[in-house]
Amino acid sequence: MIFSKRITSMQQSPIRKLVPIAENAKKQGKKVYHLNIGQPDIETPTEFFEAVKSFDEKVLKYSFSQGMPELIEALIKYYKRYDMNFEHEEIVITNGGSEALLFSLIAVADHGDEVLIPEPFYTNYNGFSSAVGVNVKPITTKATEGFHLPKKEKIEELISPKTKAILLSNPGNPTGVVYTPEEIQMLASLAKEYNLFIIADEVYREFVYDNLTYTSFGNIKEIEDRVIIVDSISKRYSACGARIGSIASKNKDLIKQILKLCQGRLCVPTLEQIGAARLYSVSEDYFENVLAEYQKRRDIVYNALKEMPNVICEKPTGAFYVVAKLPVVDAEDFVIWLLKDFDIDNETVMLAPAEGFYATPGLGKDEVRIAYILNEKDLKKAMNILKIALEKYPNKK
Amino acid sequence: MIFSKRITSMQQSPIRKLVPIAENAKKQGKKVYHLNIGQPDIETPTEFFEAVKSFDEKVLKYSFSQGMPELIEALIKYYKRYDMNFEHEEIVITNGGSEALLFSLIAVADHGDEVLIPEPFYTNYNGFSSAVGVNVKPITTKATEGFHLPKKEKIEELISPKTKAILLSNPGNPTGVVYTPEEIQMLASLAKEYNLFIIADEVYREFVYDNLTYTSFGNIKEIEDRVIIVDSISKRYSACGARIGSIASKNKDLIKQILKLCQGRLCVPTLEQIGAARLYSVSEDYFENVLAEYQKRRDIVYNALKEMPNVICEKPTGAFYVVAKLPVVDAEDFVIWLLKDFDIDNETVMLAPAEGFYATPGLGKDEVRIAYILNEKDLKKAMNILKIALEKYPNKK
Repeated sequence: MIFSKRITSMQQSPIRKLVPIAENAKKQGKKVYHLNIGQPDIETPTEFFEAVKSFDEKVLKYSFSQGMPELIEALIKYYKRYDMNFEHEEIVITNGGSEALLFSLIAVADHGDEVLIPEPFYTNYNGFSSAVGVNVKPITTKATEGFHLPKKEKIEELISPKTKAILLSNPGNPTGVVYTPEEIQMLASLAKEYNLFIIADEVYREFVYDNLTYTSFGNIKEIEDRVIIVDSISKRYSACGARIGSIASKNKDLIKQILKLCQGRLCVPTLEQIGAARLYSVSEDYFENVLAEYQKRRDIVYNALKEMPNVICEKPTGAFYVVAKLPVVDAEDFVIWLLKDFDIDNETVMLAPAEGFYATPGLGKDEVRIAYILNEKDLKKAMNILKIALEKYPNKK
Repeated sequence: MIFSKRITSMQQSPIRKLVPIAENAKKQGKKVYHLNIGQPDIETPTEFFEAVKSFDEKVLKYSFSQGMPELIEALIKYYKRYDMNFEHEEIVITNGGSEALLFSLIAVADHGDEVLIPEPFYTNYNGFSSAVGVNVKPITTKATEGFHLPKKEKIEELISPKTKAILLSNPGNPTGVVYTPEEIQMLASLAKEYNLFIIADEVYREFVYDNLTYTSFGNIKEIEDRVIIVDSISKRYSACGARIGSIASKNKDLIKQILKLCQGRLCVPTLEQIGAARLYSVSEDYFENVLAEYQKRRDIVYNALKEMPNVICEKPTGAFYVVAKLPVVDAEDFVIWLLKDFDIDNETVMLAPAEGFYATPGLGKDEVRIAYILNEKDLKKAMNILKIALEKYPNKK
């Protein structure tokens, strides 16, 4: 039997394909510190579970296709804190940020159209795009420049009549970059000049360190009809398993179109929406502790990396990731070696090879993404293992 | 701003677009009996809620992309009751039957490819198809023939080199048809001869009346590598709001391909899977009462329809729908009239105009779908309202 070209050409998740090797290491009794995945260890606020458990109807009915009104209202209030004013008909609830991205792509681009994405980028952008026949044009950014954007002219060169949108995550996964207000303005002016949508994946909005100024695309009034804000409770409230995301746009017609896709899949789970509505009403100071915790972890990871010879990375300022250039020939080989052939007192560390985050062939071969999602003690241990491993690893550059 | 052609050309859900009119009627104090939607009133087994409420971890983590092993195991056991033997790597869990259908289409058809679907069909088949650029070729079936399939030659005429699959729901939504073993065999032989997949939406598998023999495509051994079984707990366990579906196929390579799509959206909600696993372990006799209840309702609706002059419908034998041909010029106009201009003691009924279930323009204009999802008393009242309304409605044929 023959499968579709679009599915056979989809790359397997570069993170998940190493999982069996890690599982094997664990079976042999090795402890593996997972710095390879974005699954935080922070406790989900208990309000989520309390809300879910308070459900007492007899029939678990369909919810509204657009999303539960209480959740939409909670989101509207949440956005107001950031000076974004959305109305009820400007928001839809989705199955995670994933579905929000998929629906946004379907709505703005036809088969054969193009979207620009700064690379390295969240691998699943690639998956969603190829599933629906949209071509990704990468805007290459570099570790040595802290993964900030190239000059406007460089980006303009990539724009064709088929370009329909710029898609980006800010703060950035996997890079941890937070784009400057000037970068955001530059992209906004490109969107205006070339009639493009901006799909702004801002699921890490709260994870910005060093009191840096964060500019959301939701605050750029002059292009508000071009901006699609993608959000999710997964990282924000450490509720990855709830799969509640959303799309917000001042372009009501766009939301009306996307609503057709929402109707097609009927609705998002009822119980999870009840929990999510409660989370979005959690008081603002919830983020203070979480942010302090992640900033501490960021410092541990960054300071450790800086002390490792020939490791290149700028200080990341957002999300909970950093991409570092290692003095190795092939980062994937290094990660496999870490799992198979290396340990300190029967402990090792797992990282995500960064090649899979690039669309341009050959880039990122010597880079890894580190997610700082472990507690202080474990993180220090893991970084120490990495340091010694880099000394011992044979295939160095 | 310009949206994609694929989204602007998507039709709005024909059922949902009448909702505002119904809401308006209710605001004016009218009681509306909803026979227009597939939301059953049957209680969700309490086991679902108990399982969800027993969750006591501190972090709501991502589940496995393929689905929670316990749920997959529960499904494997469930299928065994129907003599279908699936292995763990032959099943993935999806966000409702909806995502199962979407992923199946993406996996077997590229942009511009075709799928055959017996019409009238579940409208969202159309939505999913246009979202991913797959063209629907309808196999027209008729009320006067109880919506059974045409002869093999008729279907063969529709097959082109671009045809990749036959998609069908059995028992049928909206028709209530249960295909005969001969019809299933005929489709199987077509699949074999023309190298097609069969996407078998069998979410109503248990809803078969009059002790009829039901043949699942999962029982047709000789084409097992071509068969994709789509399932869902929504109707089976009256848990529409859980959004838990699945794909099962003996074609392991296909499942491996679909797993890439699953990885792209990371996972299905954790809590809902815990509940669903418990539901699939509910004892078989759970269905006895449910089935008896629906068969009683089917009889109420069918007997009432038979007594209405010039209403054409064959006795439906499955699911909980019937499509009836009414003596009206335009069924949508009739439904709007029911909501706006008609009542008996301030009560009226809402039906689903069937035109939206057809892909062939002009068909189904005088047909409605009736979902028998109300209790006996309400259903009798609703059918009586329909009877009198048909007498009083001015735009009759």
